[in-house]
Parts: sequence; structure tokens; C-alpha cells
Amino acid sequence: MAIELGANQYGKAETRVVRVYRGGERHEIRDLNVSTLLRGDFGDAHTRGDQARVLPTDSQKNTCFAFAKEKGVGEIEDYALDLARHFVDDIGPVSAARVEVDEYRWERVSVAGQPHPHAFTRASGEVRTTAVTVQAVPWIVSGLKDLVVMKTTGSEFSGFLTDRYTTLAETSDRILATSLTARWRYQGRQPKSWDEAYEHIRQVLLERFATLHSLALQQTLFEMGRAVLEARDDVAEIRLSAPNKHHFLADLSPFGLDNPGEVFHAADRPYGLIQCAVHRDDAPHPGPAWDSAAAFEG
Amino acid sequence: MAIELGANQYGKAETRVVRVYRGGERHEIRDLNVSTLLRGDFGDAHTRGDQARVLPTDSQKNTCFAFAKEKGVGEIEDYALDLARHFVDDIGPVSAARVEVDEYRWERVSVAGQPHPHAFTRASGEVRTTAVTVQAVPWIVSGLKDLVVMKTTGSEFSGFLTDRYTTLAETSDRILATSLTARWRYQGRQPKSWDEAYEHIRQVLLERFATLHSLALQQTLFEMGRAVLEARDDVAEIRLSAPNKHHFLADLSPFGLDNPGEVFHAADRPYGLIQCAVHRDDAPHPGPAWDSAAAFEG
Amino acid sequence: MAIELGANQYGKAETRVVRVYRGGERHEIRDLNVSTLLRGDFGDAHTRGDQARVLPTDSQKNTCFAFAKEKGVGEIEDYALDLARHFVDDIGPVSAARVEVDEYRWERVSVAGQPHPHAFTRASGEVRTTAVTVQAVPWIVSGLKDLVVMKTTGSEFSGFLTDRYTTLAETSDRILATSLTARWRYQGRQPKSWDEAYEHIRQVLLERFATLHSLALQQTLFEMGRAVLEARDDVAEIRLSAPNKHHFLADLSPFGLDNPGEVFHAADRPYGLIQCAVHRDDAPHPGPAWDSAAAFEG
Amino acid sequence: MAIELGANQYGKAETRVVRVYRGGERHEIRDLNVSTLLRGDFGDAHTRGDQARVLPTDSQKNTCFAFAKEKGVGEIEDYALDLARHFVDDIGPVSAARVEVDEYRWERVSVAGQPHPHAFTRASGEVRTTAVTVQAVPWIVSGLKDLVVMKTTGSEFSGFLTDRYTTLAETSDRILATSLTARWRYQGRQPKSWDEAYEHIRQVLLERFATLHSLALQQTLFEMGRAVLEARDDVAEIRLSAPNKHHFLADLSPFGLDNPGEVFHAADRPYGLIQCAVHRDDAPHPGPAWDSAAAFEG
Repeated sequence: MAIELGANQYGKAETRVVRVYRGGERHEIRDLNVSTLLRGDFGDAHTRGDQARVLPTDSQKNTCFAFAKEKGVGEIEDYALDLARHFVDDIGPVSAARVEVDEYRWERVSVAGQPHPHAFTRASGEVRTTAVTVQAVPWIVSGLKDLVVMKTTGSEFSGFLTDRYTTLAETSDRILATSLTARWRYQGRQPKSWDEAYEHIRQVLLERFATLHSLALQQTLFEMGRAVLEARDDVAEIRLSAPNKHHFLADLSPFGLDNPGEVFHAADRPYGLIQCAVHRDDAPHPGPAWDSAAAFEG
Repeated sequence: MAIELGANQYGKAETRVVRVYRGGERHEIRDLNVSTLLRGDFGDAHTRGDQARVLPTDSQKNTCFAFAKEKGVGEIEDYALDLARHFVDDIGPVSAARVEVDEYRWERVSVAGQPHPHAFTRASGEVRTTAVTVQAVPWIVSGLKDLVVMKTTGSEFSGFLTDRYTTLAETSDRILATSLTARWRYQGRQPKSWDEAYEHIRQVLLERFATLHSLALQQTLFEMGRAVLEARDDVAEIRLSAPNKHHFLADLSPFGLDNPGEVFHAADRPYGLIQCAVHRDDAPHPGPAWDSAAAFEG
Repeated sequence: MAIELGANQYGKAETRVVRVYRGGERHEIRDLNVSTLLRGDFGDAHTRGDQARVLPTDSQKNTCFAFAKEKGVGEIEDYALDLARHFVDDIGPVSAARVEVDEYRWERVSVAGQPHPHAFTRASGEVRTTAVTVQAVPWIVSGLKDLVVMKTTGSEFSGFLTDRYTTLAETSDRILATSLTARWRYQGRQPKSWDEAYEHIRQVLLERFATLHSLALQQTLFEMGRAVLEARDDVAEIRLSAPNKHHFLADLSPFGLDNPGEVFHAADRPYGLIQCAVHRDDAPHPGPAWDSAAAFEG
Repeated sequence: MAIELGANQYGKAETRVVRVYRGGERHEIRDLNVSTLLRGDFGDAHTRGDQARVLPTDSQKNTCFAFAKEKGVGEIEDYALDLARHFVDDIGPVSAARVEVDEYRWERVSVAGQPHPHAFTRASGEVRTTAVTVQAVPWIVSGLKDLVVMKTTGSEFSGFLTDRYTTLAETSDRILATSLTARWRYQGRQPKSWDEAYEHIRQVLLERFATLHSLALQQTLFEMGRAVLEARDDVAEIRLSAPNKHHFLADLSPFGLDNPGEVFHAADRPYGLIQCAVHRDDAPHPGPAWDSAAAFEG
């Protein structure tokens, strides 16, 4: 019975690349957090300490900066694809490469009502993401995280299963709040514009969250996912992960005050955690990270 | 030579109060993080363990929730003043109270181009703050924190003092980025609207940051502060604290690429830290926390 | 072409359970962060908003507290198994349950050289973990995270692959530092004591890290994993994930000072990220989260 | 009425200096986070953008690294004093300098029962601190932070003041837990060894925490501070700041279980916050940051 090397990968994580486009007066910025991960023929590095097939993570970092100049940083999906294809095509031992990019959004400062050409403020805490894996076929999973949303009504929770440990009361009107993570996998023809696709999907998610009367967070997530698949035939699958950020009604009765859904305590922990995938029934077999609930396990 | 109790205070920190106004269809929300600190005749609690004069921090927390209903949460300065005055006026041993409020901002979700009546997204990471101290005279210091701003040009740094440890090159064009904390003290007549004052001051800060050609972050902060005092005669003093979030030009020359201010590495640590106060020469003596650089020492 | 619900799970995350054993004078504490996740027949909750099969996450939280009394909290693996089996056995729609437990370690305060019976300090930032999945067969993956280790010599990095973006110099003596995450899967007969197994594996990992002359972090991780499998036949597989926390030699030459491996700058980002699994060649097919590098993708 | 520059300071924050001593086989490490802040004649930099008197923060960072070689890093108080005196003595416009140092502690890995010569693990999350201000007289304030302690009994809270918002029940036995920050000011003759003083004071704080039957956290803090002043005549004053990390007894009565102080929920927010100073009655006038509760205001 031998002991063997199993799955492995390595790379450089969280390279903070900022790209400025200075076309004339009006600058544009792309503010990225880039991670690269390489897979391939790296057995000797592990078992014998032989680095002859190992491209240093420092070189991977340099490549992130160099490509920001050579290829530019337009849409993050293209930038990630360029990097991942380069590692697979040009670095011999690499058989697969995964490139993850987080993008932070900036807005122009408004001066006298006009957008300023080179002064910016960081927009919302929401982060746009992509994770591109180049192997036999490229695998493009874009998304967003830290999109914090809240509904102050239009949400109920009742008719649930009870057991001997159940004390929760049913409610027909509660606050529903979450910090959404969504990841969707593109498939087939690529969208004409990754940016347009992102904005469209983000808007579909938000509108469905807002307008659906929620019977449970499970239902809200599923309907948000379904709405995206209905709106975009270039999306094969979407995964949603959402903490239920509980807002508990403050008990003001000891002070002779009623509280008809007006004053809440926003709790930190524990929180509910609801996760689901929505896909088409003819979606080809997804990759290993996507074929069961275990994909969420990290 | 005796050992004595010195300065002391106590309270409840970070009570997360969410207040919903459900007037008809269109809801409004106020999302707050509230801390209360009481000072006064608490010697016996420390030296003898006698709690007879100590209002529990739990009661202070309850008061934050109850006041959100009884008094409502309009502008955070008024809410903080109500709380602080209550502790000083109604709780015997309390001679001074400090109430700090952070407010998180939410925007309405847009559905079919229209703002939704009860669905919201968390706006930027920026936080509005106030710290009200009620003692002989109330002391109202409002502000903002985590306002992340960047200029991609219009900033230089040259002509500085050098010593034997200086290796920095002068630059006539660099990125200037910071996460601004500003705190301004209101004095004399109160503004008609704290909200309007906040929006006005925030805009003055942003416009000055954007339009001033920066010779150093010190100058930028001073001019931002001066602009606020010139624009608002109800502000006696403003304090600004700003990390200089360095963006280093990536060296692409080993790869045969030039880099004329296009590709940067955004560094985390270390960072510059620039802090200054700007005040009127006839401002009455400021409180103890404000009378020297030591006020920053925390 | 229909749109369908895919993989899904839900539960309560980060319930902070503290259990005190007050046997006579000498107290014991167990300080846990518990997350439960249920899988099963929850389609109707998603697609129709029907909660009839959904046990509230609030009930799951209550169960965590109740079991801490009813079953006690001994070794975290047993506590997690009890919880997971309960959800699968007693809650009809549940077909699989995953329970994750982080344990924070406390040490007794030493008073006059003696361990105090009921006063404790939080020990190192290191966290002991387990993730138990009960389905057809139970799946017990224990581990540790945030174990920060450093070697100040005995580490080199040379002979690596180079490309046009490589600028890194070879080194025969560098600092090697990481914050280790390790997860190992128990299989076959259970260890007599989970606690003993944990301490043993932790010690094997640390000793191998300390004594192996490192040619690369890949080799170090593989050898650490191999040492665990050699030492414990109840462990079928181990996964290691390690950021390479770079310590860069400070360049003191501009100041006329040499720096033979004495003064370093500890960098935050970017960092290398090295991940590998080590298993026995006769290990039965691992679960879906463990069958490829994708298992790391989270 | 003119607008003027008020208090100001600038420097480099969070320079991460790691110093290795390689004397023979057995290495020693000092792992520091260093911040420097300069005060002086910097009006022109603010009001005219003239940097002629401004030593760049980059030079300050370089000095931190160079001094780690030239002067070495022994006890952090000496290292901070060296740096602060250098800035005041050698850089013309600087009239006062403040140097803050956090030190992270490492322990040797034990191999076969013996401490390893060059492999280390990060010890507890606790951080040793010093903040040295060199001006007319040096001001040395050392301390610790993030020292997390808990008592599972020997703590009560009763006999407190009540008002209409009080709902808290009295308790004669509760968990008392906090994450302690302590800062003490040395005065008069310096201790023979800063390290010895630190270890001594830390032990006095822990023993007092452990052995005092607590009637309230206020009393505990005061007695901890008093014990330090009684034990050390080189300490003039000590300041303690402690969040009351609430542990709430889980209500298990709905499940037919009693809970005599055995199962607790550890809450995050809100938390109590208790702060006090203890000093000698003949302590000379403390600096501006220490003369009132406002010193805590940060």
C-alpha cells in the first residue's frame, strides 16, 4: 500500500493590479485582485523537491502586471482567459490553469454636477467576480459577491416542519436581508459583451428579489436563479449562496411600547445559510466542483 | 502616596438598531450602530464593587431600541442628542454621556427604472458618523469614515527633505488614493438640517479633493478642511485622517515594456498616515480630545 | 428545455456554543463555533415556497445548544456525529447532514505556579476543526487551520522553470512561513480518542515542518502529509493548503549596510498559494468534494 | 476671523519588520509592526504644499529597517526610543516623534521534546505593545492587547441601579470574559529590563483577574490596575479597556432541560465596554492624551 500525491495546484493569490487608461483628459480605471492557480505535471516538485517544472509564483505575478499592459484590461473575463490560456499554451508542464479575478468598482466624483475626468470614489462594497478555468474546454464562471440587499416587507415564513427543538413562531411579515453571492457559468456562444451580461444578470437578480413575495429564502433564491436562466440563454447554470441576516423585532413591551415591525436588532451570528443551484435540464455534465452539494464545501 | 481611580467611563458598544418607517407603501430605513458611554460618580463601583449607582449596559441598550420607537430615528445627531441628554438628565450619577452613531446607507432597488418602495441595496462602504458628548455644553462632532477616493493624476511629490535613509525618487505625476476619515465639530447655531449639512460637507470635501492639484497629501487635507470651514460657518473645526494608500508603478522594463503611468501595484502595508486639524482662530477652547495631536492617539 | 433545481443545502451557520463542565472546583470548557447543513427532499421549498418539509434553521440552532446539555460536548467529532445522525435519523426529509465545528482552545491561568480551576486565557489563534457528513457512510474530516509557522533557515528555492516573465533570483536560504490549513479524513476503525489523534497529527505536522530541509513549499507539504499517513493508519487522506507568506530581505545597501539574512519585510499580498492532497493508493473512492483539484475551489 | 492649521502629524504606519538573530545554530526572532509619527514645523507643507521640511514617510520606513540592523531589535521599548530620538535629534523640523510598536510572539516548535533551533509557531493572539513619544521628556507607554480571558465562575452582578428601561436580572454567578487592552506608563527610573517588566505586569494582571471574586467588571479592572501599581513603582499609571464579551445562558427549558450554568451562547454584539485609569496621587501631570476620559476617544 503506497502513499501517493493526489490533487494539487499552486499559484499566486491576490495580486492587486490597478490599470489606468489615460486616453486624453478622461481616465478610466480597472481595479483588480487577481489569483492564478496552475495544475499539471508537478509530481517531482512534491515528491523530490525538484523545481525544474515549476514556474515560480513570482513569475505568475509578473505576468499579471505585464498582461495588464500588453493585452490590456478590458472585461475581466477576457483578461482572465488571456492569462489562463497563456499558462496552458506557453508553459510546458501546465495542463490546466484557473484564474480568479475580483473587480472593485469606482465612480467618478461629481464636480459642479459633472463627472470628473480623473477623480473617483469607490462604489458599493459589491464585488464583481470571474473564475476562468482553461483545460480541455474553457470554463467561465462569473458572478458577484457582497451584494447586500434587504426587504422590509413582502417576506413571510410559516407552515414549516417542527420538532421537539422548535420554538420559532410563524411570521407573515419579516425583514429579509442577505449578502448575496452568485456565480453563473457561461456556455455555448459567448455573450457579445461580458460587461453587458454582468449588468443584465445583476439587474435581473435585484428585480426578482424586490418583486417576488417571499415565502422563504429558498424560494427567493430559486426564483432569482430561474429568472436569470430565462433571461439569458448563454448561462447554463447559476449558484446562489445567501446568509439569512436575521433582523429580530425588538421586544419593547416591558416599556409599554408596541412594535409593529418598526424597530429591529440586526444580529451577527448565528445566521441562516441557504445555498442552491439552478440549471437547465440539458446542461452538459458540469465540472467536478459543480456536480453536487459538495461543491459548496470549499 | 495613594493609588487612585482616574478617568473612567462605561457603556454598551455597537448596538445594531434598524428602524423601519412604514408610512403607506413606501418604507424608509435607518440602519445604525450605536454606542453609549457614561461618565460620572462611579467610584464606588470600581473601588468597592458597589453597583448601586451603575445603570447596567443592558439598560442602555434597551434605551437605544426604545428611543428608536419613542423618539424615532430621524437625523442621527438628533437621535444621539436625545439619548445623551436622557442619560445626563434622568440618571442621577451620570454627569456626562457620549453617544456615537455610525449610519449605513441604503439605496432603493430600481425596478423597471422606478425606485422600489421596500427593497434596498447597501450603498457604498462609506459610513456617516456622529459622536455627541453632553456635559456642560453639548459637543457635536459629526463626520464620515471609509470614504475611499483616488486620483489617477493631478498629484505630485517633490522637493522634500532628504536624509541618509532617503531613497524615494521625486515624482511629478502619481496616483493619490486614500480612505478618508473626517470629523467636524458643529458650534453656535445648529444647522437647519443635519442631513443637508452632511451632504454639503461631503460634497465640498470631494470637490476639493478632485479639483486641487496636489503637491502632497498634507496640502490636500488642509485645503479640504479649509474649504469646509469657508463653506459652513456652523463648523468650528474639522479633523482629517488619511492613510496614503500607495500605488506603485509596476516595473515592466525586464519584459521590454514601458509603463507610462498605466499599470500599478496597490499595496496594503505599510501606508503613509497623514492627520491634521483645521480650525478658526476664534474657535473657543476645544475639549480635551481636541487640544493637541494627542487627540489622534486613541 | 426545462429549468431545474440543482444541488442545494441549508442550515444554521456559526452558532457559538460554550459548554462549561463544573465538576467540583475544577471547571472545564469547550468553546465551539458550530454550523449545520441539511440536504434532502427540499424541492418544494424552492419551487413552490412550501415549507412543510423544512426544519427551521432556528430549530437547528436550538438543537446545537440542547445537545450540548443532553449529549455533552466531549470530543468535537463525537458531538458533530451526534448532531448529524440526529438530523438524518429523526428529521424525515433529511437524507444527509453536514456538521462543521471549529474549536477554540483555552489554557488555564497560572497563579503562583499552579493552574487556576476556573480562569482561562485563549491559547493560540490556531483552530481545531471537524466537518462530519452523515449520509450512506459517515465521512469524518478533521483538521486545523490558522496554524502559523515559520522557519528562519533550512529552506531554499532554486532550479525552477523560467520564462520571459521570470525575474526571481534563486536562493539557498530563505524564510519559509505559512498559515497552515490541514484536513484529514478518518477511515476504517475510528481512533480510540479523537483528541489523542488530533494532538498526534498536529505534532507530526509540526515536527516534519521543522526538520525537513525544504526545497520548496510543495515538497514540505507533501512530506508533512506523507508523515501523517505513515504515522496513522486510520487516516486515509490528508489535504494541505498553505499560503507562502513572503518575507523579503530588506535592501540596506543604499545605507552602507549588509543584510545577511537578518532584516526582512513581511509582506501581506500577494502570497503564494500551494495546495495538495496525499492519500493511500488503496483509499476507496473519495467523496465528490475530494476527487480532484476542483475540491479546493470553494 | 482666519482659518488656521491646527494639530497635525504624519508618518509611516504598519511597517512589518522581522529581525532574525542567527547566532550559531539557535536563531531568535523579533516580529514587529512599527508605526512612526512626526510632529513639528510642517505648516508650509499644509498651507503652501512646500515639502522642503518634510522627510518622506518612505524614508521613515527605511529607517525602521536600517535601525533593525544598525541598532538591533532587542526590547521593543529600546528600539522605539532609538527611532524616536533619531527623528527628533537628527531631522531638523521634527520637534516630537511618536513610535508605536506591536510585537507578535513566537514559540519554538518542540521536536522530540526539545525546542527546535529555527522553527517557530505563532504563540497566542495576544500582542505586546509600546508607544514611545519623545518630546521634552520621553513618554513610554507599554502594554498589551487582545489578551482574551474568561472566568467560568467567581463573577456576579447585582444591586445595580434600575430605571424604566431595565429588564436585566441580577445574577450571583456568571461567565466573565473579555479581550483586554492595558497600557501602562513608565516613569522615573526605567526598569532594568523591559521584557522582565512586561512579563511581570502581565502576570500580575492575569493573577488578579483569576483570583478576585468579581462584583463587576469595573471592580475587576480597577483591582487589576491597582495590583500593577502596587507591584511596580516604575509604573505611574495604567489604563484598562475591556469589552464585556457576554455569554448568555441558553434557555433549554422548552426542551425540558435545566441549565445550571453549563451551556452558553457567546454573543458578538453589542458588548459592554468598560474603561478606567488607575494612577498614583503624586503622578506628575500626564500628557494630553491621558488627562481625561476623552483620552479614550480615539
